[in-house]
Amino acid sequence: MGSVLGKVVLLFSCQDQKGLVAKIAGLIHEQGGNILDLDEHVDPESRIFFIRVSCEFPAVCTEAEELRASFAALAKAFGATWSMHSSEERQRLAIFVSRYDHCIQELLWRHRIGEIAADIALVVSNHPDLEPLAMQYGIPFYCFPVTPETKVEQEQKELELLAREHIDVVVLARYMQVLTERFVQAYPHRIINIHHSFLPAFSGGNPYRQAFQRGVKIIGATSHYVTELLDDGPIIQQDIIRISHRDSPKDLAQKGRDLERMVLARAVLWHIEHRVLVNGRKTVIFE
Amino acid sequence: MGSVLGKVVLLFSCQDQKGLVAKIAGLIHEQGGNILDLDEHVDPESRIFFIRVSCEFPAVCTEAEELRASFAALAKAFGATWSMHSSEERQRLAIFVSRYDHCIQELLWRHRIGEIAADIALVVSNHPDLEPLAMQYGIPFYCFPVTPETKVEQEQKELELLAREHIDVVVLARYMQVLTERFVQAYPHRIINIHHSFLPAFSGGNPYRQAFQRGVKIIGATSHYVTELLDDGPIIQQDIIRISHRDSPKDLAQKGRDLERMVLARAVLWHIEHRVLVNGRKTVIFE
Amino acid sequence: MGSVLGKVVLLFSCQDQKGLVAKIAGLIHEQGGNILDLDEHVDPESRIFFIRVSCEFPAVCTEAEELRASFAALAKAFGATWSMHSSEERQRLAIFVSRYDHCIQELLWRHRIGEIAADIALVVSNHPDLEPLAMQYGIPFYCFPVTPETKVEQEQKELELLAREHIDVVVLARYMQVLTERFVQAYPHRIINIHHSFLPAFSGGNPYRQAFQRGVKIIGATSHYVTELLDDGPIIQQDIIRISHRDSPKDLAQKGRDLERMVLARAVLWHIEHRVLVNGRKTVIFE
Amino acid sequence: MGSVLGKVVLLFSCQDQKGLVAKIAGLIHEQGGNILDLDEHVDPESRIFFIRVSCEFPAVCTEAEELRASFAALAKAFGATWSMHSSEERQRLAIFVSRYDHCIQELLWRHRIGEIAADIALVVSNHPDLEPLAMQYGIPFYCFPVTPETKVEQEQKELELLAREHIDVVVLARYMQVLTERFVQAYPHRIINIHHSFLPAFSGGNPYRQAFQRGVKIIGATSHYVTELLDDGPIIQQDIIRISHRDSPKDLAQKGRDLERMVLARAVLWHIEHRVLVNGRKTVIFE
Repeated sequence: MGSVLGKVVLLFSCQDQKGLVAKIAGLIHEQGGNILDLDEHVDPESRIFFIRVSCEFPAVCTEAEELRASFAALAKAFGATWSMHSSEERQRLAIFVSRYDHCIQELLWRHRIGEIAADIALVVSNHPDLEPLAMQYGIPFYCFPVTPETKVEQEQKELELLAREHIDVVVLARYMQVLTERFVQAYPHRIINIHHSFLPAFSGGNPYRQAFQRGVKIIGATSHYVTELLDDGPIIQQDIIRISHRDSPKDLAQKGRDLERMVLARAVLWHIEHRVLVNGRKTVIFE
Repeated sequence: MGSVLGKVVLLFSCQDQKGLVAKIAGLIHEQGGNILDLDEHVDPESRIFFIRVSCEFPAVCTEAEELRASFAALAKAFGATWSMHSSEERQRLAIFVSRYDHCIQELLWRHRIGEIAADIALVVSNHPDLEPLAMQYGIPFYCFPVTPETKVEQEQKELELLAREHIDVVVLARYMQVLTERFVQAYPHRIINIHHSFLPAFSGGNPYRQAFQRGVKIIGATSHYVTELLDDGPIIQQDIIRISHRDSPKDLAQKGRDLERMVLARAVLWHIEHRVLVNGRKTVIFE
Repeated sequence: MGSVLGKVVLLFSCQDQKGLVAKIAGLIHEQGGNILDLDEHVDPESRIFFIRVSCEFPAVCTEAEELRASFAALAKAFGATWSMHSSEERQRLAIFVSRYDHCIQELLWRHRIGEIAADIALVVSNHPDLEPLAMQYGIPFYCFPVTPETKVEQEQKELELLAREHIDVVVLARYMQVLTERFVQAYPHRIINIHHSFLPAFSGGNPYRQAFQRGVKIIGATSHYVTELLDDGPIIQQDIIRISHRDSPKDLAQKGRDLERMVLARAVLWHIEHRVLVNGRKTVIFE
Repeated sequence: MGSVLGKVVLLFSCQDQKGLVAKIAGLIHEQGGNILDLDEHVDPESRIFFIRVSCEFPAVCTEAEELRASFAALAKAFGATWSMHSSEERQRLAIFVSRYDHCIQELLWRHRIGEIAADIALVVSNHPDLEPLAMQYGIPFYCFPVTPETKVEQEQKELELLAREHIDVVVLARYMQVLTERFVQAYPHRIINIHHSFLPAFSGGNPYRQAFQRGVKIIGATSHYVTELLDDGPIIQQDIIRISHRDSPKDLAQKGRDLERMVLARAVLWHIEHRVLVNGRKTVIFE
């Protein structure tokens, strides 16, 4: 980030107190910025204040470091968690897959047409099946077959690869392996998973079969950040589709595929645009 | 049911075999009937065949008993479960409530404008609060306060009342008591409940609070037949509404109210129109 | 409004310029207020800035007039349209109906349980049919039968009644008369209508019949402010429901009723909570 | 089609009369078939009867020609329109595109994973842009640039290509040309279009811009058969997505893309599975 700023997204959260919006908006104004979009929220129970401000700065009049320093000082004064993101920084994504191609296909296509404004740096899989698809889109493909015996070792190699490639976000696009705690902790709130049920219903294995057996009239898909507990992380997005007694488990899987890819794509887009703030076990989404 | 038939709904289910539709449709044709609507389904796993036929008979040419006897013979030959319902039979409903009025209000209003083509024979409550509402609509109101000590005894009185009043269907319109096994078994697949969550998620108490704490992005409501296991009976209808981090538990309850009454009303309408067939733990809905 | 303020909603809109949020938030802070909720929007084409701030003031420390004066000065400086609403002011609603009861029933019920935090001051109708319903809820009912010949005269009486009763908002809850220009102009952006189609499709008469004949797979309902052009005013809320070839025009009307009352109720709630800002022919909804 | 039949879909429609279902089901039973799925409908206004029967025949016991002859005789007796489709016949599709790739991408992907059980025989475009995409999937690509002067001539060549390739269905996957009457008449109810609005709202050009200007709160997409009147043919499927004042025309186009491809894919799937029957200006969909 040099002296030309352009668009900036600021995230800021701390215990609620009077005058926060005035101070933050004031600081942006002092630095010559124009607010394009401002969204704030106070958690009604914890009284934590969350804000996302998208603003525009004249190309030459402001030094990025100066702005950053001002916010750092403000954050320190309020004991806040904060971050600042220039529109010029492009995040680097790694997509993890197994054999199903619908989610990765969706992400690669949205990337190609420019919707996902980030770099898809690489694809990791425990199976070789989707290498041709990655190739089609010109994305490097790495295969790390995993057995219970080799899991820790393979994950270690994956982590080294991710580090080497400066990966910011890991997207589990129907990756059929449970990650170890160690892996999860290396990317806190930066691993996005898609689970093919309306969580917390039907967590764990084979949710379409579970849904079929319970006889629900609606199925869902859930995108969430991965935490140490399976299918338990903060939910980013969910959506549903109506089913009927006519739908077999195979039909559920087919209808569900469309949900899965839409829900995952939405979550990835929101994450990349810094619209998702984690609030304990929940998320605040500044759409 | 006399000799004038008019419209009839026939339900029939048995192990699938060739020629079932031909035989049933043939029988209706022989008796001078005209099929208005026919819907059938074969469960892909159990191979059980379900059919609902709505048909019209000329007022004078057919004797109801003759038709009934023909179907009884057919059903016996196929080992089928079956029933026949004339449009002239009006079912008798009992509505059970506690203090919330939104579900009963919805049912009473839909009854008054003729949507619910059945008799709402009485209202039962464990609290006196909604007596004025029942009065407004001219429906007898019975109050049976329930404590853990008096529950069995009060249920006994309720069952006697229901029997005396020839009640066909019991609708739990946010009735905040768990019915005993004995009560449930007296009305198998004839007690309709509304649960204010997207089952199987958030079964049990306070589902809106549970949903709030889990941070889901969508809440739901579920109408189901009551069985001995809490919130576990065959699901008739479900619907959902999108929520956000801005919604407090109170907001969820407010948004959920609209879902609850729509979902319950739909389930009651389907039940009354003989559109719901139970298939083990699931339902077949012939919309 | 006295010296005790409590909660206040501020609406403010003007041509976009730098520092608006900082100035407004700063002013609230100076006056001792705490922002509970802030939402802003800049129209991408007209570059008009819209803001809604909900804030809380300590009961004794601030004079309402002082706050009002500060905002008036700010608004004058920016050439802004603005308004300030205390939570203590209760708006006065008039509901206009003809013969259908579903929309008024919905509003009266939501009013009774406290969802609609306003006064429903009176009901006006061109038919006597719904007087008993208004009576049930204890709302004065006025019948003004309308013929082409008496329309202008009757509207005059209605306007006098509305003025006398200090009505803020007129809700057309399936009122089957087109209001004259004169009436509309007396309540600019304060007459809320429900149209039983997904506007702009099927404007004008008998939209369910139109929808049936076109063979659409989804029907809708639209709530909008009334303007001089029929069914053309700024849209506040819309919703839809799926239909099929099985649905007759009567079925559409039945399914549509549920949409109509939900959509109208939502629009009324938003209007009362000062969440709707008009932007030319469109609305900005700060949910 | 030889003597091995397997699965067959029968479509049949005629003026309603008593005994139709009995006769059709009886005929299938006589020929040794087993009904898997039966759906029927009588138009409430025209009294036209529609039926779709999916059935299974033992591989060797029935001659296809015999079955076909029986139905032909039945159809003749009732003055019915009918058709019979073996699951072994694979329809041949031509996809027409211009420059947008989202709809064709969706169809090609669904074809590759086996959801669209038909042959995509070729792609036609008035621009060369999407040739690489067709190549990727191994589908022959034909470019016919169109100007007002060359339109008739180019369409003639296209029609010859389609005839030569035995094309059954033409899918307009955001093909930005209006077909001439002559072309349309060559494929009656066999040209499927996707229009990016909730028809009949916003027919014609630039529907997202129209929707933006009208300030609707929901946008839609519509798939329909192409007829001589623009955007007026029988509707097969529609879907919608909620938007807000925050969405620019570009956002509408982005959100709409997801609708368009889902709605078009659904219509193509239903058409291929013989689930769409045309009823004048409307469709009957046997899902």
